[in-house]
Order: sequence, then C-alpha cells, then structure tokens
Amino acid sequence: MIKIAVDAMGGDNAPEEIVKGVVAAREELSDVEFVLFGKKEEIQKYVSDFKNITIVHTDEVITMEDEPVRAVRKKKNSSMVMAAQAVKNGDADALFSAGNTGALLAAGLFVIGRIKGVDRPGMTTTLPSLEGAQDSFTMLDVGANAESKAKNLHEFAVLGNFYSCNVMQVTNPRIALLNNGTEYDKGDRIHKEAYQLLEADDSINFVGNIESRELLNGTADVVVTDGFTGNAVLKNTEGTALSMLKLIKHAILDSGVSGKLGGLLLKNSFKEVQDKMDYSKHGGAVLLGVKAPVVKAHGSSNEEQVKNALRQLTTMVDSRITKNLSDYFETHQSRQEEKE
Amino acid sequence: MIKIAVDAMGGDNAPEEIVKGVVAAREELSDVEFVLFGKKEEIQKYVSDFKNITIVHTDEVITMEDEPVRAVRKKKNSSMVMAAQAVKNGDADALFSAGNTGALLAAGLFVIGRIKGVDRPGMTTTLPSLEGAQDSFTMLDVGANAESKAKNLHEFAVLGNFYSCNVMQVTNPRIALLNNGTEYDKGDRIHKEAYQLLEADDSINFVGNIESRELLNGTADVVVTDGFTGNAVLKNTEGTALSMLKLIKHAILDSGVSGKLGGLLLKNSFKEVQDKMDYSKHGGAVLLGVKAPVVKAHGSSNEEQVKNALRQLTTMVDSRITKNLSDYFETHQSRQEEKE
Repeated sequence: MIKIAVDAMGGDNAPEEIVKGVVAAREELSDVEFVLFGKKEEIQKYVSDFKNITIVHTDEVITMEDEPVRAVRKKKNSSMVMAAQAVKNGDADALFSAGNTGALLAAGLFVIGRIKGVDRPGMTTTLPSLEGAQDSFTMLDVGANAESKAKNLHEFAVLGNFYSCNVMQVTNPRIALLNNGTEYDKGDRIHKEAYQLLEADDSINFVGNIESRELLNGTADVVVTDGFTGNAVLKNTEGTALSMLKLIKHAILDSGVSGKLGGLLLKNSFKEVQDKMDYSKHGGAVLLGVKAPVVKAHGSSNEEQVKNALRQLTTMVDSRITKNLSDYFETHQSRQEEKE
Repeated sequence: MIKIAVDAMGGDNAPEEIVKGVVAAREELSDVEFVLFGKKEEIQKYVSDFKNITIVHTDEVITMEDEPVRAVRKKKNSSMVMAAQAVKNGDADALFSAGNTGALLAAGLFVIGRIKGVDRPGMTTTLPSLEGAQDSFTMLDVGANAESKAKNLHEFAVLGNFYSCNVMQVTNPRIALLNNGTEYDKGDRIHKEAYQLLEADDSINFVGNIESRELLNGTADVVVTDGFTGNAVLKNTEGTALSMLKLIKHAILDSGVSGKLGGLLLKNSFKEVQDKMDYSKHGGAVLLGVKAPVVKAHGSSNEEQVKNALRQLTTMVDSRITKNLSDYFETHQSRQEEKE
C-alpha cells in the first residue's frame, strides 16, 4: 500500500479543495492511503468516509507570506513540515503540498534530504507539446535554484531523463538545452560548458540546443535550463497564453452581433485550446533529486488539480524513480571516485 | 535633411522588399534622404523615381550564415559594413539593416562605436502592452550581450529610459527589472545587486521587479533584463503567441460546420488580435548605446515592416536621442570621476 503525506493546509483553497481532491483520488486509486496533516476539525468537514484516509492534527500553518527557510525551521509543527517529517521517517512514501513553494523546497531539501550524489535538485514541470508524437514535455529547473553551474545543468538532464522514462513513459527521451541559439557555441559561459557536458554523456540522448520560440513545438522531451531562465520562460508561457485568450475574448465581446454569434459557435474550439494548454492535468511541479517524490500543486488548485497531482505522486512511487535515481548516482559517484 | 544608410542586401527578402520599403518611406517622410548600399543593378529594378534615393554600389554581402565578427572584419566592402562606415564618417545619420543580427551588432559596436561612457549597448525591442495606458513597452537587453553585470543592467535602464521618453514619448516611464519574483531580494546575485542600483538612482522612476507572467499587462514602460533572459523571454513570447493562434486555427478547422461558420464570423476579431500582437509596427530592434541610431528589422521583413523601421529611425534622429545620451553619460562620467 502506497502512503502519501498530504499538507492539507497549503494553498489558496485549503483545506476544502485539498481534502475534496484527496477524497476524489481515493475513489480512483484503491491502493493508496492518504495521511492528511492539518486542522482536524476543518478537514473532517469534507470527509464522510475515512477509508484509506487518516488525519494527523497540526495547529501551525506555513502561509504564502512566510519567509521559506525560516518558516520550515521555526514552524516544526506546521502541516507542511510534519508531512515532510512523516516522509523522512518512512511513515509515508511521498509528499503533496499546494502551499508556499519556497517552504516546500526547503522542506524537501532540509527535512527529506537530497539523494546521495545529487548536488542540486531541480523543480520540474510538464508543459504541452502542441506538435509531434508526445503531447507533453518535461522542463527543469524552473526555479529551485537562482544560480546554476554547468554541472548542475548536466544533473538536471539526468534527473529529467529518468522522469521522462520512468514517469512519462517516453522511450529514449530527446534532451535539449534551452539556449539563445541552436549552434553549439551559443550562450553564456555556463551554457556553452553545459553543452559540452551533455554532448559527452552517452547515457542520454542529447539533441542539442533549443530556443524558447520552439518550446511548445514538440522538438524535445526534456528541456534543460537554469532555474532563473526556466522560471522566466515558464511564467512567460503562462502569461502569454493567458493574454492571448483574453485578447480573443475581448475582441469577440467588442465585435458586433455576427462576431458574438461566431464566439458562441466556437465555444467548443476555445474549450479545446484551453484544455490543451492546461498542463495541470499532468499534476504539479516535482522537486526532483530528493529522497522521495515531492509534488507542489499550484496555489490556486481545485479538487480536480489536487487529484491529478496525487495520481502523479502515485505513478512516481510505482515507477520507483527515487530508487532508480539513487542507484544511478551511487554507481556514477563510485565511477567518479575510481577515476580520481 | 536626415540621411539614412540602408543595407539593401540584408534579410530574407532583400533587396526587393527593402527597396520597396524605402520607396514607401520616401513617400511618407519628405525630409529624409536614403542611401542604399548594395548591388546597383538589382536595386534599380525596384526604383523608378530617384528623388531622395541614392545607390552606392557594393559587391559583397554578409549572409545569415556568416560568423558575425569575422564577417564584419573581412567583408569591408559588404553592403552592411559600407553602410555602417557611412554613418561612422558622418555621411549618414542612422543605419538600417534586416540582415545578420550578430554582424549588425558587430558593425554597430566596432564600426560606428559606443557612446563614450557606455559600457555595453543593449538590443532594445518594443512589445505590446495589452492593458493600461500605453499600448507598448520597451525591453532591453534582448540579446546583444550573453553575459551581463549588475552595472550593465543599470545602464540598460538609463538607455531604456531615454528611449521611452525621447522616442516613445512616455512621460516619466516606469522602469521595472525582470526577475523571478516581485520582492526586492529575489533573483540571483546579479539581479539582487541590479535592484539596489536601480533603487538608488533618482534619475529614473524605478517601480521594482516584474515577473515575466506580467510582461504584456502594461505594468511597466521599460523592462530591464540581461541579454540571456531577455532573449529567451522575447522568443518565448513570440513562440507562445504564434502557438496559440495556430491552436485556435486548428481547433476551428477540426470543428464541424458551425465551428467553421464561427471562424468566418470571427475573422475580423482574429485579425485584430494579430494586429495587437504584431510589434513590428513600432519598427525593428534598436541597438541602443552606440553613436548613431541603428535599427535591425526582422530577417523576414516585408515592405511595410521596412517602412516602419525607417520611420522609427527618423523619429530617433529627430528626437536627438544620441546627443541626449552622450550628454547624460558625459555628465555622469565626470560626476563619477569627481567622486573617485
């Protein structure tokens, strides 16, 4: 039986949507037990049947405004830290939260801990591929690290490769480096050096540089980037897509009767576009490189999105990705030591 | 009389669309003389009336595949280098090209030269603001520099401020720093340091950090960024907007008869959206910080886009932005020296 520790108090719609999402996931995932951390009285309101659901009462809550590292250190009895502690102790296999991203990062790094041999875990997200064979791709780091070295980018490629193979079920994933040109000598010093490291690694299928213009065109299964650029590009994709939908909506509302009729007739088409761009169906952002699956759902997550993220965690536990990563980095490290 | 040196051979559609754009601009801008550099025979095909148009024959052409710095050094008789040389010699006031971006950067930096006191000129683009009082904003650097220091980001803010005031006619432009969070302590070391420099500069209206999600929402008139992130975000905005339009088109084509009818009824609305997102109406990308206005139009520019870029160059010359920047940096530098 898989056990998922759930921070029931994190997120804009907590605990209601979190708990409803757990209940919905319970109906779908019969072999998963959910341990909910948070205010018992509030959580109970949304659960009528406690099959596979346990509540661990916690008083403290880490808010969106809390300074992340400090909050994780000080609020030891918060729902998030207690849930992370349960994973650390082996009482649960994976961690879910829709709360303070920085705090979840800190909880992942300092409470659960990094896989031995991993220097910098990376925040990993799944985005839609609008063309090509796959309907999505994996991108990391999208913000766990403000500064990265070339060797960290190489590590992100390895982490992403495992995620794409193990969790997204992609065979021989195409790994690309996000850069400001496709030629091998493009970019700043770090990206030039990262290119060389990726090119030299026979264990991955490196396909070269990718420009952010091509991101959604399905040319890569894993896009490797530093956390600063990755964060900017991820938020830009979200923002631009949203702006485009808003623009079209306004243009329709401002048009005459025939335009409005056109809008009505196209309702399904617009819905389809929104569905394609909605990457929350693949779950939340994963902190890859720590000793257990950790997923951060969007702060505004609703029941459905929470359920998707819990399904994603279950797939991650089932796929034994953490064990596979640990084995890889152990072998890799001993090989490195032999060399030295 | 303003004189613009035109590289007639640069760009995918050169010389035809370039020359047609010049002819169209000549009809609109009566006080401008255009000096076209390129293959005389080819250029002449598209000019019937030579009023305010001169051709300087050049045999060599810098291609899109040429290695930029090398090309500018070796191809001294190319249309681009000859045009830049004319500006350098004072035979023209401004430089236009739709050719190899890297080569134009090199020609701007090494032939025309930096304004005294400017460390790193920045590539500057105008993007649509979809909300708020202004219909566009200025962003730099979008790729002139692969690596930037905090003081370069500060310099970009000063350059962008002059562009926004002098050329875009914005009063007291709101300057924002592109960063991975809005709080003052967000970002890597360089962006944290840049925040401090911008905050301390009373000569600009610094409004804080902006996230790339908000870019198109009209919250800033000048967005300051390092060339690596700026390039990624610019290309991502283009790519995502294009993907969204493609998605909607496909969704309409795949829908039934009523959907297709809807598409027809909405044709004008879609056209409106495309127009709003089309930032080429503001001209091309400007290399800000060199001793004369230099504009790079998109490689695929057509007659209309070339004309817009030539109008932009005329506005830049009229606004005396180069003189204003030179004065600023001269005063600024002597003040710096006094301090030291």
